Amino acid sequence: MEEKMDNLIQSASQGKGMAICDSFHGTIEFIGKRWMGIIIYHLLKGPMRYHELLANIHGISDRLLTERLREMEQQGLVVKKTSLSSPRKVEYELTPKGKELEEVIEAIIKWVKVNGCHHQQLENK
Amino acid sequence: MEEKMDNLIQSASQGKGMAICDSFHGTIEFIGKRWMGIIIYHLLKGPMRYHELLANIHGISDRLLTERLREMEQQGLVVKKTSLSSPRKVEYELTPKGKELEEVIEAIIKWVKVNGCHHQQLENK
Repeated sequence: MEEKMDNLIQSASQGKGMAICDSFHGTIEFIGKRWMGIIIYHLLKGPMRYHELLANIHGISDRLLTERLREMEQQGLVVKKTSLSSPRKVEYELTPKGKELEEVIEAIIKWVKVNGCHHQQLENK
Repeated sequence: MEEKMDNLIQSASQGKGMAICDSFHGTIEFIGKRWMGIIIYHLLKGPMRYHELLANIHGISDRLLTERLREMEQQGLVVKKTSLSSPRKVEYELTPKGKELEEVIEAIIKWVKVNGCHHQQLENK
């Protein structure tokens, strides 16, 4: 059992170009990419338009938001929905696989609340 | 409430040199650094010597293992324990704060098991 788990943990470190879902290794590094976590956090609230994401994530550049959304699409975590109305409205929406990252995001938020050096300051605001 | 949460999510993106525990943003990017997740995964099994970690994590370089362990020490996630016996034995051990990352690591492993493209192959091994 432990050996099987270690295979799961390690596999991506032994091959290049594997999908993130192939292993713990690929997944944790994918969601830990610069800005990725915050993008996922916002999309967990529901579908959002590009400019809404840009406005909500202070400090992210146009280039990086575009790049991250494309990477998420490639990994099957996000789909682009286009409405038929005029003007055309494009929204980014998490796929079921993307939505299942909620538990990971929640575990990190919980860890920060419990262990964060400054969480008391935030709580008292 | 949502506003407070957004403060927690964003804070590290607005300052430099903050500790990882200051925000979700800093934390997810810290644990997503190259090899960091696998090191935490192995240390969750119990204290380990440097060469044991090196032997268990296929592909990691000496330099990166040293650097990651130092970063974890700086963030209060790991302590170096030195035995008084001869020869001196040095082990790396997760602090309580480090051990509390278990829930995050478990949530990611669970996500990979459910969503991993190749998990069926691994299960059948």
